[in-house]
Amino acid sequence: MLVATRNPLNIGAAARAMSNLGFSSLRLVTPYEASFREARSAVGAAPLLAKAEEFSTVNAAVADCALVVGTTAVRQRELHHPLKILHEAAPLIRQRLELKDRVAILFGSEKRGLSNEDLSHCHWLMQIPTREEHVSMNLGQAVAVSLYELVRERPRNVQFACNSAASKSTGAKPATVGELDRITSVLLDTLGTSGYLASNTSAVQEEKIRRMVRRMNLSGSDAELWLGMLRKMLWKMNAGNKNQ
Amino acid sequence: MLVATRNPLNIGAAARAMSNLGFSSLRLVTPYEASFREARSAVGAAPLLAKAEEFSTVNAAVADCALVVGTTAVRQRELHHPLKILHEAAPLIRQRLELKDRVAILFGSEKRGLSNEDLSHCHWLMQIPTREEHVSMNLGQAVAVSLYELVRERPRNVQFACNSAASKSTGAKPATVGELDRITSVLLDTLGTSGYLASNTSAVQEEKIRRMVRRMNLSGSDAELWLGMLRKMLWKMNAGNKNQ
Repeated sequence: MLVATRNPLNIGAAARAMSNLGFSSLRLVTPYEASFREARSAVGAAPLLAKAEEFSTVNAAVADCALVVGTTAVRQRELHHPLKILHEAAPLIRQRLELKDRVAILFGSEKRGLSNEDLSHCHWLMQIPTREEHVSMNLGQAVAVSLYELVRERPRNVQFACNSAASKSTGAKPATVGELDRITSVLLDTLGTSGYLASNTSAVQEEKIRRMVRRMNLSGSDAELWLGMLRKMLWKMNAGNKNQ
Repeated sequence: MLVATRNPLNIGAAARAMSNLGFSSLRLVTPYEASFREARSAVGAAPLLAKAEEFSTVNAAVADCALVVGTTAVRQRELHHPLKILHEAAPLIRQRLELKDRVAILFGSEKRGLSNEDLSHCHWLMQIPTREEHVSMNLGQAVAVSLYELVRERPRNVQFACNSAASKSTGAKPATVGELDRITSVLLDTLGTSGYLASNTSAVQEEKIRRMVRRMNLSGSDAELWLGMLRKMLWKMNAGNKNQ
């Protein structure tokens, strides 16, 4: 998933790497130029570009995904997310793909990478181990390297090392991002109504709550449980308000 | 080492990936345009491009190398060389680098790859595991992926094993059992007051909520956050009740 990409050649390059390495679903959030579908650097990737989907927000683009991973080159950003090196991240992503979960990998714009708002939609972040002195990779190359790591051993019969740690996956299907968004939204309402947050919550507070909800690692059934509980609390508080 | 590269942007991209990943010695054999040193795609790689060396034959370019590895996407070429998949090739290359041997990795032209003459200078060949249906990668991306494989585990002391469970451990101290108990207790109060649970909750329901709180895998700071939010909600509901 490419967010706010400026150069259509980079979109083409990302598409080509996806096609080379066997990934088919490209999503674009507010690309800078609409002309990306003809990107010249996309040798062999025309079919993939033709069915790329466009979204106007990250929120909408990740709504049906069970895991959202952000990419970052920055070392010093005050990270509110767990950060994993690419080769540690890949087995976790493959595990989820094997469970048929939909996974989004977000790449930010060439200039600025992902914004804090973008990052607030991510469960965790991953990073390519570039040199401290020159961390920032070309976008198309970063996509190629990231996807390569996911499939590098695929042609042979791979047994992933980390299956024993799949403790969370014992039957519990993870909540979709859509469900997490509903929880975030109801929780914000609840916090506003209770007076915990001012009624006009700032974007920063919203991001903080969004990240907190993601850190809960909810299963689908727990997500439902939380939604029910929060809605009931909200209803109760509103009932109290009416009587005042 | 790039052989007969046509597009200076690709030379720049290769140089940038080298710089990102910690390789410094770029050699060019008969590049198509002499203008490559200004390549725009080489953000941050100007020093590396400035000292790139030019050669008129592969023979001359590899003369001081102890190991010469060719790259190829082609599956059907009648190969006279051993062919290794990238992740199998990398340890062999690293071994030689550790012995301070000079190793050349050859990348051919965008159109044709390496010629048979070029290949004749190689000890063996390596290949990125691309899809059968779309084998040919962009040159800059192929360089990035190949170099990444050589250094992917360098920055950390590798522990493969099963880190997935440790994903939350990036600095965040986990909540104590005492904190989880307080959250459980306030949450039960809140659910009772809101009417979500009957006021005389059963032990079974309490256990369910207690387990759910544990599944949240809270950090100490998130535990505090939740306690604050829940207490405020409870206070608000009780204030509403008083006014009834």
